[in-house]
Amino acid sequence: MNHDVTDEQINNVTVKIKDLGHAVNISRGAKRTVICAIGDKTQLNPKMFDTLPGVKTSKYIDKKYKIVSRESHHQDSVIDVRGVPIGGKQIQIIGGPCSVETPEQINLAAQQVASAGCRLMRGGAFKPRTSPYTFQGKGEDGLKIFRQAADKVNLPIVTELMDIRMLDTFLKYDVDIIQIGTRNMQNFDLLKEVGRIDKPVILKRGISATISEWLMAAEYIAAGGNHKIILCERGIRTFETAYRNVLDVTCIPVLKRETHLPVIIDPSHAGGKAWMVPALARAAIAAGADGLLVETHPNPCEAWCDADQALNPQEFKDLMASLKGIAAVIERSL
Amino acid sequence: MNHDVTDEQINNVTVKIKDLGHAVNISRGAKRTVICAIGDKTQLNPKMFDTLPGVKTSKYIDKKYKIVSRESHHQDSVIDVRGVPIGGKQIQIIGGPCSVETPEQINLAAQQVASAGCRLMRGGAFKPRTSPYTFQGKGEDGLKIFRQAADKVNLPIVTELMDIRMLDTFLKYDVDIIQIGTRNMQNFDLLKEVGRIDKPVILKRGISATISEWLMAAEYIAAGGNHKIILCERGIRTFETAYRNVLDVTCIPVLKRETHLPVIIDPSHAGGKAWMVPALARAAIAAGADGLLVETHPNPCEAWCDADQALNPQEFKDLMASLKGIAAVIERSL
Amino acid sequence: MNHDVTDEQINNVTVKIKDLGHAVNISRGAKRTVICAIGDKTQLNPKMFDTLPGVKTSKYIDKKYKIVSRESHHQDSVIDVRGVPIGGKQIQIIGGPCSVETPEQINLAAQQVASAGCRLMRGGAFKPRTSPYTFQGKGEDGLKIFRQAADKVNLPIVTELMDIRMLDTFLKYDVDIIQIGTRNMQNFDLLKEVGRIDKPVILKRGISATISEWLMAAEYIAAGGNHKIILCERGIRTFETAYRNVLDVTCIPVLKRETHLPVIIDPSHAGGKAWMVPALARAAIAAGADGLLVETHPNPCEAWCDADQALNPQEFKDLMASLKGIAAVIERSL
Amino acid sequence: MNHDVTDEQINNVTVKIKDLGHAVNISRGAKRTVICAIGDKTQLNPKMFDTLPGVKTSKYIDKKYKIVSRESHHQDSVIDVRGVPIGGKQIQIIGGPCSVETPEQINLAAQQVASAGCRLMRGGAFKPRTSPYTFQGKGEDGLKIFRQAADKVNLPIVTELMDIRMLDTFLKYDVDIIQIGTRNMQNFDLLKEVGRIDKPVILKRGISATISEWLMAAEYIAAGGNHKIILCERGIRTFETAYRNVLDVTCIPVLKRETHLPVIIDPSHAGGKAWMVPALARAAIAAGADGLLVETHPNPCEAWCDADQALNPQEFKDLMASLKGIAAVIERSL
Repeated sequence: MNHDVTDEQINNVTVKIKDLGHAVNISRGAKRTVICAIGDKTQLNPKMFDTLPGVKTSKYIDKKYKIVSRESHHQDSVIDVRGVPIGGKQIQIIGGPCSVETPEQINLAAQQVASAGCRLMRGGAFKPRTSPYTFQGKGEDGLKIFRQAADKVNLPIVTELMDIRMLDTFLKYDVDIIQIGTRNMQNFDLLKEVGRIDKPVILKRGISATISEWLMAAEYIAAGGNHKIILCERGIRTFETAYRNVLDVTCIPVLKRETHLPVIIDPSHAGGKAWMVPALARAAIAAGADGLLVETHPNPCEAWCDADQALNPQEFKDLMASLKGIAAVIERSL
Repeated sequence: MNHDVTDEQINNVTVKIKDLGHAVNISRGAKRTVICAIGDKTQLNPKMFDTLPGVKTSKYIDKKYKIVSRESHHQDSVIDVRGVPIGGKQIQIIGGPCSVETPEQINLAAQQVASAGCRLMRGGAFKPRTSPYTFQGKGEDGLKIFRQAADKVNLPIVTELMDIRMLDTFLKYDVDIIQIGTRNMQNFDLLKEVGRIDKPVILKRGISATISEWLMAAEYIAAGGNHKIILCERGIRTFETAYRNVLDVTCIPVLKRETHLPVIIDPSHAGGKAWMVPALARAAIAAGADGLLVETHPNPCEAWCDADQALNPQEFKDLMASLKGIAAVIERSL
Repeated sequence: MNHDVTDEQINNVTVKIKDLGHAVNISRGAKRTVICAIGDKTQLNPKMFDTLPGVKTSKYIDKKYKIVSRESHHQDSVIDVRGVPIGGKQIQIIGGPCSVETPEQINLAAQQVASAGCRLMRGGAFKPRTSPYTFQGKGEDGLKIFRQAADKVNLPIVTELMDIRMLDTFLKYDVDIIQIGTRNMQNFDLLKEVGRIDKPVILKRGISATISEWLMAAEYIAAGGNHKIILCERGIRTFETAYRNVLDVTCIPVLKRETHLPVIIDPSHAGGKAWMVPALARAAIAAGADGLLVETHPNPCEAWCDADQALNPQEFKDLMASLKGIAAVIERSL
Repeated sequence: MNHDVTDEQINNVTVKIKDLGHAVNISRGAKRTVICAIGDKTQLNPKMFDTLPGVKTSKYIDKKYKIVSRESHHQDSVIDVRGVPIGGKQIQIIGGPCSVETPEQINLAAQQVASAGCRLMRGGAFKPRTSPYTFQGKGEDGLKIFRQAADKVNLPIVTELMDIRMLDTFLKYDVDIIQIGTRNMQNFDLLKEVGRIDKPVILKRGISATISEWLMAAEYIAAGGNHKIILCERGIRTFETAYRNVLDVTCIPVLKRETHLPVIIDPSHAGGKAWMVPALARAAIAAGADGLLVETHPNPCEAWCDADQALNPQEFKDLMASLKGIAAVIERSL
């Protein structure tokens, strides 16, 4: 629909689709409003709608995923996070610790992440842990000290939402990007809920989710009207036991064909060891990723979780330098 | 702890564990109360606790999963569902449609399931669907008509809970067994919540969850005090594309070693085609499963979802007969 | 072609296919001669050939695998091994040790296998081992003592061929069934070579071979004229690390649809532990397998390879008894 | 052993190891002679051997793979192929068509590969094909015209050996690097045979081979005395169906830790589509690969096999340019 579409115009199109025996999904985003007719394609024709008031263009989308498909929107989506663009020429490295631990730790981390040149920061307050007996995150208190630490260095924050009932708390602390973790990629009620708000969402790939399932999960968010979706590959599960997961770089060129959404990579969770991270991070940028989520900790040996995979501040700085070089080769910036 | 353990006795043990520098988890179930000390094993000794009032026995559990491990409880757990035992000599076949559709459909299904000899019935009111544009289940209305239909034939019901906010509704309709679906196996907040109530839970295996992760997910429920957990294998994701999933029968003897919990199998979702179901169902029972979740529909061709995989009433009856034969060979009953 | 087809008749059909611009494969087996035209299906028509002398019937085969497909031959193939049928109502359990060790060991094994009721015996003389530094099999000497031991109890033998250059040696000792191992499923030159002889072949599934690749490997053998092919599933590789491989019982009903060839199962290699074997063996027979390859050893603790997975003679006898019961339930015999 | 080791010195060490109850493997390569004692580590001590004549150094190797492990040889191995080094600072891109088709095609391909800046050329004369009914390669005639074409532009050649019986033919045409394909990674008799000659070998990873199995397969070659082994990752099999295989870049840093052998990557087979190749090739070099095997064809649309995955000459040139940039960033050259 046109940018200045009215409720009445939306209603007219909707009624017409229903009269023709199809289901309707209206996705009203901040920038775009998309109306999807769901049903037998042979019964409808784009020409039936092109002349209705408020309609910009109409077309068939053959993919099961509609709003997120490249077919429906040809240019790359660039998502603005408080002035920081994700998905354009500039590559974003989102650094930070696995979990928020103490004010001292998170303050120090924030300074180091900012001084390394990052424009966004990550950190976990609610942690999905395999065992019920391990550290489950600092919770709301973690959110609070993370927000304060990041504000001091003026970095927008990324943090994971696990429990649908915590969404209001996330909004209260004005979390800039809400991360949906790998285990919740198909937690459809959670997806629907973040689809109703106007906040960027990082949607991590399920550990054995196909590209198609992943894009359908993104479509759940988009269908609710939130089009600010960033896909994040974080390693997939295979037969190999020599490393935690296999970083799937092949998904990068494939997603760039299939969707207009930005694609970022988490090299830290993929391999599970800090010494693997630089190689994987470089591979991801060379393959065309729009950014990275990288774990770095003021003192990895003392990290409360995933200590093995965090880079120390110097390793992180060195990595930033080599990524800058690779970005230049493929005509992007860091 | 002993059956008649008092709060004071629990408190005494707890204080002692904490004084010795360990974390504590108290899991107070309907039949058993288990107190776990979490920490460095070399610092504690079972003898330190055996003489305390209220303590029945204490031991080291080397497994990461404590309460659900066979080490902690040697006999098979038999879970009572309104008089129907799951996990003993008698095998339970839980039949029913993929989703609750109409009062007519679910009433007819209930009669057929009962007349085929089932003692429990399955049906979905909230459906986790890959696409946001497909039928998402009848919701609360579905629960209501399912409850009514099953009550007429006096069958306890099994149905899936996806959204933590719906738990009270499930309790309102007195759902007899709450199913946690494959996509929510590591939705830890949901697990914690069903761990706090006193209702049997079927925990389906994640599509690529390891045995260890699955038992840790069960431990999340058990740690909250709900020990009435039934594990359900439903096919795993592999490289093979000729069928939807691979039914992992190897997990049956392995789980029987690792845990005291009952193990059931869902042959319908594994293969994804009705014609595969009898072979897979027979294999599961022959391998030692304690029961099955089988999709059957009064008229599979008209099913609103997963039409391909439901058995028709006659096929279901025939299957029951051959399963009875196999049960007898391994000295069990159906 | 008809049973009494002549060379001239074959030649006529061949010339006609070539004149019509297609490639030809002639597979002249002991019971059937099949001529395949390979190419664009729209250019040929069965009617063009049905009236030619010697032609029994002609049809399109849509599958990539032609001769082995159920489309090309509707009845189950029953393969005769010195009077023992594989693929009919009677189920064959092929017992024996992982490897031939000494005359004493293999003689004792042969007596035990025969007395347990087996009609065929397995044993390895050439062993494919992951490490070059472990026992590689007794070689030709092993073949010799295996042949002698089996002859004493009148059992046909099954043994693995790894090296194409050893085929003559296998024929010299008149090996009754040649096994192609999982690692050689796509060793195409080896497949072509066993396709040229008139001996039954057990083709094990590659550890991550799809059903389609496996049937194409069988087609390599069949294309050479040897139609006596028995498929053997032995566990597939997945993400699971709690057991060696996952026995894929789903493949049994699927193969029964796709091909007329017999399907047997190796429960010993799948799980890798003797205590898993009875459950897996029962599952396989219940799911419709035509037979099993089971490792049993006079003294498993002293086995030179795969000691963990061999049943001792008593366990093997007990297993045979329960399999007999399951066979009866599905109207087969053991 | 020392470089100038004598047979007598080797014999002395061997006798001593055997006297101590251990098995011996002598691997006599062009540059190094390694004697492995196989057995219980607690029974031997490096000091027992360090003083024997001809011994350079002796140590425990804890890995199952001995000669190929980084533990046994700390520096990177650089393999010389007629003056072209594989495994050092200089990265080698090995271009060429999937298969040798005609003298015209292979001559043109050779010129294009040379003019693009490659120092080695690939091409297949014997093709492992899933179906017996598709083009199986030009065979010996293909080897001959490939040799002639490459000689004109002075490029060493890489081509695949499938059948052990063809090894002499490969030596006759003086194939510079013998490739062992993914399906033959555990064709142990073939590995042993190429272990006995003095020619570099590219060992492709099996489609679902673990790092450990792959290095053990390399050890089979090394144990025979041929230490000139190049490992090649070419995509692994996973659950994902959106692309043929998943290129496993994580294996690059891991192999660099585990082994001293060079590691190259085949981005063409991994994704299966030409448009994916540049992204994957860049990722591989950025992650630290020592080279690439890339399919390029004078006219991809007319290629006799794998037409979809070959780059055309211009795409190949463009790729070479961007790889040069990435190589510079990580302080290597192309």
